[in-house]
Parts: sequence; C-alpha cells; structure tokens
Amino acid sequence: MTKILVIGAGAIGSFYSAKLAQVGVEVTLWCRSDYDFVKKNGIKIESYEGNFQFNPHKILQNLDEINDEFDYILIATKALPTIDIPDLIKNILKPKTKIILIQNGIHIEKNIAENFPNNELISVIAFIGVSRKSAGIICHQEYGKLIIGTYGAKASESVHFLENLWKKSGIEVVVTDEILLERWKKLVWNGAFNPLSVVLGAKNTVEILNNDLALNLVKNVMNEICNLAKIDNCELPADVIEKNIVATQKMKPYKTSMLLDFEAGREMEIEAILGNAIKFAQSKSLSTPYLSTIYAIIANY
Amino acid sequence: MTKILVIGAGAIGSFYSAKLAQVGVEVTLWCRSDYDFVKKNGIKIESYEGNFQFNPHKILQNLDEINDEFDYILIATKALPTIDIPDLIKNILKPKTKIILIQNGIHIEKNIAENFPNNELISVIAFIGVSRKSAGIICHQEYGKLIIGTYGAKASESVHFLENLWKKSGIEVVVTDEILLERWKKLVWNGAFNPLSVVLGAKNTVEILNNDLALNLVKNVMNEICNLAKIDNCELPADVIEKNIVATQKMKPYKTSMLLDFEAGREMEIEAILGNAIKFAQSKSLSTPYLSTIYAIIANY
Repeated sequence: MTKILVIGAGAIGSFYSAKLAQVGVEVTLWCRSDYDFVKKNGIKIESYEGNFQFNPHKILQNLDEINDEFDYILIATKALPTIDIPDLIKNILKPKTKIILIQNGIHIEKNIAENFPNNELISVIAFIGVSRKSAGIICHQEYGKLIIGTYGAKASESVHFLENLWKKSGIEVVVTDEILLERWKKLVWNGAFNPLSVVLGAKNTVEILNNDLALNLVKNVMNEICNLAKIDNCELPADVIEKNIVATQKMKPYKTSMLLDFEAGREMEIEAILGNAIKFAQSKSLSTPYLSTIYAIIANY
Repeated sequence: MTKILVIGAGAIGSFYSAKLAQVGVEVTLWCRSDYDFVKKNGIKIESYEGNFQFNPHKILQNLDEINDEFDYILIATKALPTIDIPDLIKNILKPKTKIILIQNGIHIEKNIAENFPNNELISVIAFIGVSRKSAGIICHQEYGKLIIGTYGAKASESVHFLENLWKKSGIEVVVTDEILLERWKKLVWNGAFNPLSVVLGAKNTVEILNNDLALNLVKNVMNEICNLAKIDNCELPADVIEKNIVATQKMKPYKTSMLLDFEAGREMEIEAILGNAIKFAQSKSLSTPYLSTIYAIIANY
C-alpha cells in the first residue's frame, strides 16, 4: 500500500490527499491548528461534484511523532519564506521517499532540490477553487485540474503512477516533461492579477479588466514575465497574453488568492509569485521595471 | 500702483501675495471658503521669520463681482484637472493683464498659454513649507525661495519687476530663462517622493530612504524623469539624482504634499506631477514603466 504524508492540511492538501485516499492510498495528515476537530471528525469535503468524507489513516499534531517511512511526502503549504520546508522534512525523508510539491509560484522547487538532491521532486500545479470553510470543512467550488511533472527532468514513473491514482479518483491530470514552462505559463496570470488585485485597491478580475490603466499594466507585467520565461529557456506561445485576457474576461468576477490573503490579514505569497521572478531577472542582469515597482509597493503592505 | 488679483487664497497664494502687499502692491483676494472670517479679520501669517498681518485691499467671494482691471492675475490654486483655470479667468483677463502661475508640476502652463496666447505667462516655482492652519491663519514653517521665468521665452521685464518686489519683501528669488528646465529639475524630486510616499504606505522621506527597495524605486523613477527632460530639450546635470538623494538625507523626516493631501482626503496633484509627464512620454512614443505603474496604482487611491 502506498503511504503518503501530507504537510500542510489546508484546502489544497486536504482535497488532493482525500482524493488519493479514495483510491486506496494510506494518508497521514499533519494537522496543527485543527488537530482536535479533525482527529474526532475527519474532514468533510463539500464539493460541487458531490460531498464526501475524508478520514485519514493517521492524524499527527507534531511531526516528531513520526516513525513510519513514507513513499511520498506531499507538501501543500502556502509558498512562504516563513515556512522552511527542508527543515520540516529533513528528519522524515528517507532515501526512497519522493517529494510532491503542490504550490503556487516560480522556482519554488529550487531550495528543496538543492537540500535533497537524491530524492525525486515531483512538481504539481493545481487549477482549482477550493477553500477552508471552518475546522475540518473544505469547500471545493470549481475546477480541479493538475499539471504534474518531475522537477528538472522528464516525467518519471512515479509521476505516471500519481497521474493514474488521481485520474482514478476523478481528477483531470496532465503530465508534462516541461513543468518549468508550465509554471511560467501559470505565472503569466498569477504574476499580474495576484499582486495587482491588491495594489490597485482590492479589485476583482472584472474591475481590473474594465479599468484601462489597470488592464494596460496587466499586459505590461505579463509581457515582462514572458520575457523572463524565454531567458529561462521556456518560450511561451506568442498569444499567451491575449489568451489569458480573453479567458479572464469570460470568467465571473474573481478575487485572487493574494487579495483574499491580504483582506484576511494573512501572509501573501509575494516571494513565490514576484520575488523569485525578480531574483531570476537580477541573476541575468535583466531589468523588470513593472514587476520591481509592484514588488516594492506590495512588500510594504 | 500695481494691481494684482489672487486666485487661490490657500497657503501659497496668501503668503506670496501678502509679501507683495508689504511692498505696496494692491492685492485683491478671491476667497471662497474662508470669506467671512478673512473679510472680518484679514489673514495672519505665522512665520518662523516673524509673524505679520495681511489685510488685502479687497476680498471677493465671487469672481463676477470684479469690475477692476488688474496688472497681474496670480494663480496659486492646486494644479488639479477639476479646477479649470482658463474658465475662471477668461472674463477678468484684459489684453495687458499678465498671468502669474505658482503651482507644482510639469507642462502645467500649456493649457493657459494656449487659451490666452497674447497674455504674458509668468511661471513660478515655490520652495516653501507653508500650510493653512485654520481660516485666516497661515503657518510659514520653512524656506520661501522662488524661481521665476517667462513661459516659453527669456525672462521678461515683468519677471524682473516681480523679482524686485519679492526681493524687497525679503523673499529669495532666482530669475531664469529656462523655467521649463527648472520645472523638470523640481519634478525629479516631486515625481518620485510625492507619489511613492503614498503608494509605499504613507511613508515620510526618511522611511523611504531607509528602505532599500523604496530607495531603488526612487532612483529609477528619477532616472525616467531625467530621460524625459532630456527629450524635452532640458538636459539636467548628470549628478541631479545623487544630489537629490543626498539633500533629502540631510532633511528632517518630511511628509510630502501628496501624502498630506491623501491623508486629509483631499484631491492629489496626480496629473500635474505624473500624468503630464506620462502624456509627454506617450507623445514621443517613449515607455515609462516606473512612472506608468505608479500612476495606474495611485489613480485608484
């Protein structure tokens, strides 16, 4: 039986590991804040595709309670500088343990790969609307697709193994040999709409699109990200900006995760979404005036 | 006797016309909000150089009460798109009336010059710390220097006439044949510190200088303004950015006028300070990523 440990039992981590549990994976959940509730009641997934109950094999309050060996450690915390992933997993990781990283942002794998060069690192991008309603209650509002690949290499057997598990559970999964390119492609949207939704004064997607100055800024930021992607050997399709704008126009008004974090007083994923892209630009002596201006402003929020 | 009408009886307009009254100019003050108080009590200038009382020759509540002819109309309102200067003065301006414009910003003279091409336009830049304390009370905290020139031409006789009047009243005055260059030079500071003090989260000058990201942004904005000035045939000294930073480091912590306006819920001089510079760039097909990003953000405040 496949054994998996989940670090970060928020909406994303709970949802995707619940799906794995549905198809027979033995899921151990590290659950800090909601431990008492979840230990007693498990997790209820209220999904637009049908509600279901998730009772993890084991629920831990502290990671040092662990004496099992896991096939996979799935990391689904927010991508924040204050969360030191290598430090969290260094005592749990065994030589054969594979790491699954489901997070937002660009170049977020680097730190983990450098710390554990001999463990396979599977990088996953989630396209989903899912949120924690209250302790033990996860609300799945829309989508669910995953893009999954091996970091720095072609998709491995393990990637295909996970693909099959998630597909069996009803999730749409795309396997890629170019996960870095997919991350840049997602950053085109995230790097523009996420921070701009905050610094433009708490605007949803439609309010941004309907404001000429803001829309222009969105396009300029996206263009800067496309240029960085190219320098990072990830040539994005020529129409990626236009397609992102058109797709966003077709969506209903949407508050970005960064805006939701900001409004709730939670730490925003500024480094994963902007800081890492700017650091990459600096390492290549490239100027990113749009990203850097927005970064300097949002860093003061 | 020289007759002058003052449009905009705020701190700047009151202070500099009070100085002219001290040396014998007949000052008519258009005073809307504080009319009753000022009609009864005049204006008290509380200056660090010594307090004095200013009793204008005439105080008007409505501009249509006017049947005099003036030698000068001194405009000292804030530079805001909502204040239509040509419309305000079109019925008062006589063929020989000269216009004095004491305002912040770049290319702010253009609209007036185009509307009244046959009236001399004297453009004035004020370096002063002065504010309205309450109705009829103006507080002069520091500085007072004026740079004065004829718009679009060499300094005229009238410029030298005003120079002598203000100098006699104790004001430091510099006459220039290049008022446009002086406006660009002042914009180097204003265009950076004014909007950044707002969008970086209500920061004073020292807080901006002590923040590496913010300081870097200040320099990039200043550089963009220097490039625009050059295209506008105003080559600024090579060390203008460095000198502005060093001078600001030597100042005590200072809240910009734009930040004070923002905090008081007053309209900010966004167009005069940023919008006009960006419009000029666009007219020359130049890109101004730093200014444009900050403009799009502050326009939503």
